[in-house]
Amino acid sequence: MNATRWVRFEHAGTPGLGTLAQDRIRVHEGDLFGGPQPTGVELSLAEVRLAAPLAPGKIVALWNNFHALAAKLGKPVPTEPLYFLKASSSVIGPGAAILRPPGYEGKIVFEGELGIVIGRRVAHASRAEARAAIFGFTCVNDVTALDIIERDPTFAQWCRAKGFDTFGALGPAIATDFDWSSARVVTTVDDSVRQDYPLSDLVFQPEELVARISADMTLLPGDLIACGTSLGVGSLKPGARVAITIEGIGTLANALAP
Amino acid sequence: MNATRWVRFEHAGTPGLGTLAQDRIRVHEGDLFGGPQPTGVELSLAEVRLAAPLAPGKIVALWNNFHALAAKLGKPVPTEPLYFLKASSSVIGPGAAILRPPGYEGKIVFEGELGIVIGRRVAHASRAEARAAIFGFTCVNDVTALDIIERDPTFAQWCRAKGFDTFGALGPAIATDFDWSSARVVTTVDDSVRQDYPLSDLVFQPEELVARISADMTLLPGDLIACGTSLGVGSLKPGARVAITIEGIGTLANALAP
Repeated sequence: MNATRWVRFEHAGTPGLGTLAQDRIRVHEGDLFGGPQPTGVELSLAEVRLAAPLAPGKIVALWNNFHALAAKLGKPVPTEPLYFLKASSSVIGPGAAILRPPGYEGKIVFEGELGIVIGRRVAHASRAEARAAIFGFTCVNDVTALDIIERDPTFAQWCRAKGFDTFGALGPAIATDFDWSSARVVTTVDDSVRQDYPLSDLVFQPEELVARISADMTLLPGDLIACGTSLGVGSLKPGARVAITIEGIGTLANALAP
Repeated sequence: MNATRWVRFEHAGTPGLGTLAQDRIRVHEGDLFGGPQPTGVELSLAEVRLAAPLAPGKIVALWNNFHALAAKLGKPVPTEPLYFLKASSSVIGPGAAILRPPGYEGKIVFEGELGIVIGRRVAHASRAEARAAIFGFTCVNDVTALDIIERDPTFAQWCRAKGFDTFGALGPAIATDFDWSSARVVTTVDDSVRQDYPLSDLVFQPEELVARISADMTLLPGDLIACGTSLGVGSLKPGARVAITIEGIGTLANALAP
């Protein structure tokens, strides 16, 4: 394991790419998925504003993908990955505000999740090809306007409820060579722990997700698979700060605008 | 009205962009949404292979958006646009084969639709801003693996059933300054008419769709809104050729692989 944490940032008004170690960023240039090269410049984390570590082409997001959550909801464990698509325009980075959709008065819910970042084009992948197609992992907050999903009795509005601008928080980094199997997802709201679940409880694990989803749709560099959430989801009050931590990746914190 | 029909094509192994008049293509260079310029080269339609006229960033696809279909299905007319997202990786152009997903034995259904092509970034658009954000219109075949949608009783799989590679046929052209209000969508299968419906029967019309959807999610140049289908949807036998015609745009024909 030779883990690297990739970040995107803005420094003096200019976007940049780099690797993060402690509080230092080694600036790189080139395509994240095409072997970017160090420029020799180093910046302090304090000098930059972190941005979302990627701009996904598509976001495939899992529903009901943890045994503990299925048991709590009384739902059967799925026999195939159940997913929706989340709008790529929903993406924000660390520290950016989550905005309540104008006119929507209902619950806004956080969902802390592991995100799989695809690094190469892959279709109908074997398990080995799936493994090779995974560039790394990031934290995802799959923010949801909960009351929209079922407000029309004839059609469940998953894509809309989860697709609003600012509802796809990603970051703070993409960790390569990351061992998800022993990691936990910890979500706090205003420093109170709300989620703390082990990724070993996944129903469909990352390599299997990439293999199965790539049998449906070609996955491309920069595509993201959000693995779904587990116990402890809840709603946010105006101004609440939600922070998702996966050790080895970092902490993704965003506040709902007051 | 000064209608232009934009096409993308492959000629001698190289992709190109141009305007189509009769059977002649005036080749252009530059960004389709940034004022492309004619190169002076002209090609005959017979010399090229048409490709999808755009590579959408996201595809927002409407459900139950025609009065006649709602009445036939016994569904209420929606009070807000009901939509899902279709994977951008599903896109194919005119003439490309629709492929049955490996392992799927169920019905593959055609849905002839009008597609709205977004030409500029727009969020929370007024009706006037929505009108200005519409670059043009194309034909869409929103191909669907019908038996997948409801095969899991706990979660309707709209995005998956409609997101398979080759399930998003677009083309043959993007028509600008196109008066959709007097146009019809005519779908034939092996030369037998299966759909022939007026776009005046839309529940949510193009400008209203752009205004409302842009209030949920920022729309970007190259995004596509598929307006939903009406009466006459049906399934395709292996080898069947489905052709969607909207006068003023052209005919989009694709066959299900035998």
